[in-house]
Parts: sequence; C-alpha cells; structure tokens
Amino acid sequence: MEHSTRGAYVTGGREFTRDTQYIEDRIVADVDAARRAPALPPTKVGQIGAGLREGAQAWPVEPGRYRLVAARACPWANRAIIVRRLLGLEDAVSLGLPGPTHDARSWTFDLDPDGRDPVLGTQRLQENYLARFPDYPRGITVPAMVDVPSGGVVTNDYPQLTLDLSTEWTAFHREGAPQLIPDAGPERDEMFEVIERIFTEVNNGVYRCGFAGSQEAYDSAYARLWTAMDWLEERLSGRRYLMGERITEADVRLFTTLVRFDPVYHGHFKCNRNRLVEMPALWAYARDLFQTPGFGDTVDFAQIKAHYYVVHEDINPTGIIPQGPDLSGWMSAHRRDELGGRPFGDGTPPGPVREDERVDPAHTPLR
Amino acid sequence: MEHSTRGAYVTGGREFTRDTQYIEDRIVADVDAARRAPALPPTKVGQIGAGLREGAQAWPVEPGRYRLVAARACPWANRAIIVRRLLGLEDAVSLGLPGPTHDARSWTFDLDPDGRDPVLGTQRLQENYLARFPDYPRGITVPAMVDVPSGGVVTNDYPQLTLDLSTEWTAFHREGAPQLIPDAGPERDEMFEVIERIFTEVNNGVYRCGFAGSQEAYDSAYARLWTAMDWLEERLSGRRYLMGERITEADVRLFTTLVRFDPVYHGHFKCNRNRLVEMPALWAYARDLFQTPGFGDTVDFAQIKAHYYVVHEDINPTGIIPQGPDLSGWMSAHRRDELGGRPFGDGTPPGPVREDERVDPAHTPLR
Repeated sequence: MEHSTRGAYVTGGREFTRDTQYIEDRIVADVDAARRAPALPPTKVGQIGAGLREGAQAWPVEPGRYRLVAARACPWANRAIIVRRLLGLEDAVSLGLPGPTHDARSWTFDLDPDGRDPVLGTQRLQENYLARFPDYPRGITVPAMVDVPSGGVVTNDYPQLTLDLSTEWTAFHREGAPQLIPDAGPERDEMFEVIERIFTEVNNGVYRCGFAGSQEAYDSAYARLWTAMDWLEERLSGRRYLMGERITEADVRLFTTLVRFDPVYHGHFKCNRNRLVEMPALWAYARDLFQTPGFGDTVDFAQIKAHYYVVHEDINPTGIIPQGPDLSGWMSAHRRDELGGRPFGDGTPPGPVREDERVDPAHTPLR
Repeated sequence: MEHSTRGAYVTGGREFTRDTQYIEDRIVADVDAARRAPALPPTKVGQIGAGLREGAQAWPVEPGRYRLVAARACPWANRAIIVRRLLGLEDAVSLGLPGPTHDARSWTFDLDPDGRDPVLGTQRLQENYLARFPDYPRGITVPAMVDVPSGGVVTNDYPQLTLDLSTEWTAFHREGAPQLIPDAGPERDEMFEVIERIFTEVNNGVYRCGFAGSQEAYDSAYARLWTAMDWLEERLSGRRYLMGERITEADVRLFTTLVRFDPVYHGHFKCNRNRLVEMPALWAYARDLFQTPGFGDTVDFAQIKAHYYVVHEDINPTGIIPQGPDLSGWMSAHRRDELGGRPFGDGTPPGPVREDERVDPAHTPLR
C-alpha cells in the first residue's frame, strides 16, 4: 500500500501512524467454507485459514477474473508481484501497472497507451475504488485486486493478499511452485513472529523515520529500526534465508524493503546509520534474493526513486530525484550458497519473465 | 562563508550560483607595500603577494587586535580554524564561535554566556558587519575577521583569509609551523590549479547539487562533482597529500568538504553516487588528515549536521537532523604512511588544543 495523498505525510510534532484499515474481502478457493467459518480477528500481517474479517465478503478463485493492480515503485505492491511470479500465477491473475508517481487523488495508468489500463479501461485506480464504493473515503492504495467484470476493487488488504495467493490459488500454481508458507506448526508460527517484527520495525519502521513529525519521534524511530536491523544481520549471518533452508513469505516481505534501502530510505527517510552495503550478511542476503528469478527481475529502480522523491513533497519539496547510488554491486557474487539451502525447496525457479511484464532495462541497468 | 538567509537556497528552474562578492580588505605585514603595489585582479581562490583588490583597504598585522569569527559548522570557516591552529596563531588572533544555526538575518553567538561574544560583546555577527558598513547589503557570512577596537568586520574574503594567515602573519607563527604554501614556482602554480578545480567542482560542487532548482541542473552538477571526485581518487592513490610529500593549503580546502561528505552532502545534498567510505584512497586520505593534529580536533559533527539540516528549510522542511551515519570509522587505521611523506615538512605538529577551544567530546565522539 502507498497512500495517494501527495505531499502530506508528515504531521508536525507527531509520530507517523500508518492507516491499517483496508477493504478486507478475500478471494478464496471455497467461498462457502469462508462464510461458515468463525470471523477472523484483526491482524497486522494477515493469516492462514478459512474465515473472513468482520463485515468482509468472500469471492471465488477464478482464473482470468481478477486483475492485480500493483505499482512497481511500491514495496507493498512489489510483494504481490514477486509472489505471483514465484507461484506462476501470471495466466490466472493479470497484472496492471500504474506509473510511479501520482497526484493528490490517485495512482494512475499513465504508462499505458492513452493513459488507460488496457483491461480495466480506467485512467485512475480511484475509478475502480469508486466502482466498488461510490463514497470510498480512504486512500487509493496499491496493491489492489480488481474484479474485471464489474471494475470494482475486491481487496487492497496487502498482508492478506499474498498469503491468499499462496494458499487459496493452489489449483493454478505452476508446476514446481515453491511452498512459501510452511506447514501449520512451530515453523509457521515462528515465521509469523518474524514477519510481524519485520513489519512493525522495518517495513513500516523506515516510514516512521521518514515521516516523523518531531526530532524526538525520529530519534525513537531510528533506534527501533536499527535494533531490528542488527537483529536481522545476526539472524542472517548463520542461515541462508529468514526461516533457514528455503525462501518463504518472510523473505519476500523483507526483500522489498531492503532493495529500497540505499536508493531511498538511507537518504530520503534518514535511515542513515549505515547503508545496506555496510551490513555484510544483510547485503549478501539481499543480493542472493535479487539474483534469484522472481525477485530482482521485478525491481524497477528508476520507478522506485521517482515515486518517493516526487510524491513526498513535504520532505523533498524540490522534487529532484538523486542520480545515486551506484547500483552495480547488486549483481556481484554473494557466496550465500556456502550456507547451503535450497531456495525453492522441492520446487523449481520460475522461468523467464513474460515479455510484456519485463522491467525496462534502462531502469535497472544490471542484467 | 555560509549565507545567513535561512530557507531560501533553491531557485526554481535555476542552477545554484554562489555569491562571490566579499569585503576584500586584507590584513598584511606591510601596509604601505600593499597600497603601493598594482591592484590585484579578481580571483575565486585568493592569491599570494602584495597588492589590494579594487576598492579594498590594507590593515596592519597586529597580535591581539583581530578576532576570527568562525562557526565550526561551516566548511569555509573550518578552513580558517585549521590554518590558525596549524600555524599556532591562537595567541595572535582570538577565535569567536557562533552556534551552528542562525535565523534569517545573522549567525549568532548563542553558545556564549548570555548569548554574547565575550570579546566583541555582540549577540549577532550582523552587528559587526553593520559597525563597519551601516547599510551592509549582502549576506552575513563566516569566517569574518573583526577589528576588536572598532567592532567592525575587516574581511570575510575566506579564500584570501587563510593565505594571508600563512604569508602575512609569519612573524607570529609558532616554532615548527608548517609551510602550507609552496615557494613561488611550478609547485605553487600547480597547487593553485588544484585548489581552483577543488573549489569549483567539489567545495562548491556539492552545493550546486544540493541547491539545484531543476532536475537538469542537478544532473549536470552531479556529473561534474563525480568527475572531480574520480580525479581526486586517482590523484590520491599514488601520493599521500594533494601536492605529494607534505600538507599544503590545498589539503585544508579539500578536507573540510570531505569531512562533511557522508554526514551531510551524501543525503542532504543528494551527492549519493558513493559515500566517502566507498572511495578507498579519498577515505584513507581523509582519515589520515582527520587523525593529524589540527584537523579532526577542529571538527564538530553535531554542529555540522545541525547547521545544514536546520538552516536549509527549503530542502529539509521538517528540520529533523539524522542520527547517522556511524562515524566510528574515522579513527580506524589508514596506512597512508606507507606512501611516505612528512605531514609537516620541516615543521612539527601543533600541540594540544587550548582548553577553551576544545570541541565538545559528545559532538565528535571519536577521540
């Protein structure tokens, strides 16, 4: 998610607080089971299993029916792009790509011919929110799953969205799709603990630094962030991935923040104790993932930088986008394979990116 | 020099242009010779020899008469603090230290008891400019040499000021003071070429990046800066100091920009292709100087960060000062002595810093 209200991110004197209310409908394999199950409690990071949140609806899994609208710039949307590709859901769920910057009202399809999404026919993602709820009062965020027949947004609940791609869309996964969610048990429980700490301290922690409304709020946010970064550095010194041998959902969620760290969060959000490249384990881990099919091939550095530096007018009023940093290190050897592990477990890497979904090579000049 | 007009550094659509008009009076060993000599042509970097610039006056060298007003935050003022200390002029020229931030009108003596400079008795440096020129129309800048009896500013011509400390105040240099200006000849000529390139491309180049009023102006400033940084990296790979064997004025002028590079210019001014710590020769060179008496002991990192992040409201409207970067590397081994050289030539290092001029150890927690 990224709010669309351009230039009003900092509240003077206040800590940044993320709006965590979303359209919490789910797209599920068994609609009846979801409706019958007890209501799910609120969560910051999503959860596995049948059930709906209070007031939410269930929609059926159906290939070709939904369009994932996900700006490459946005870290929360980037997660969904990665998971869709790792699982091979490209044919089942199409992908709409708004441009990196947006105005006060909405993400827009300004990269598409005539400025309209070729499947939805809309110019602004806001139109799809209003098609669902004519008085929709909240931010127009990505990722959003849109019901193509009605043009309405089904859900923008990003933490739940990727979990449902893993667990509800199994019938349409590619052969060799990795298991990103461990089986129920202690490993899954631990993964959710890791995911929650990463969310509150890192994924959202960088925003808490960048949008702090007072020196005190910033200083406290910075201390929290670096405590967590040191914990991750240590955790990843002895294991290849966050949960050990293979890539899980937790790695996807950490990766999208790490890949933005030096280009954006270090300077723009003042997360500047160290650059990622100075954290040996985290930097090698991030490169390992970057070089793994499904990760780096979804990353558009030019769109990432344009988004943050242009949209956040209240912390970068000139709108100037830095030329740096030098990104050439992303393709350097990482030697993480010496730690062992099988990235895709019993599965296989995804094949090449579809031609119509490739990142502009001028935007990520590394391959 | 640093202008005092807070929050109005960027002109939309325009390249940043430094105001280079100063009060160009000189304090000289031989006032009559200076008056008799032909007028000096304008220069960006100062020059050696008798003579005055058009309209300027000559003042006599006289120990105890002048006070150097120099904020530790400011790189142009930092030069003068370093040179005064290397040459041992502490008893001849006293030092006034305005605080790191200032309002729209003036640097102020807010760190002193009752907010007044203990020698000049003024609260704002502006008062000393107005004591000299009641209608003074330009920015209130540091460094400024103030005539204590009259309270008026004699000169704020920072490039000339340090040269005159080296060449006009020789009678009051300490025993063992280094020769920072090579004898007249090819080496001196080359030093001035190096100094001029460093001034236009690096000292001022970082400001050109930070205060660019358009993406185009920024992109061009960034390219110029990094072309020069690569040149310096190469030049310093094979020689210990910019002019070879010993420290010269050129090193002082480069050092004050390098020491501010990672804490300020990298993020705040978007000079972010690389951090200084990623440039092996430049980083080792900067550490070598930092660890040399007279350099690092003049550096106040807390004041440096406070100045830039608070005063430049138009590029950092929140006024929040980053906690980073981690500065612990400044005291690490540099191994530059393997290149040979004698830092002070036939001279000796300066002794300990006077107690009343020591940097607050909490501000530069490295010694």
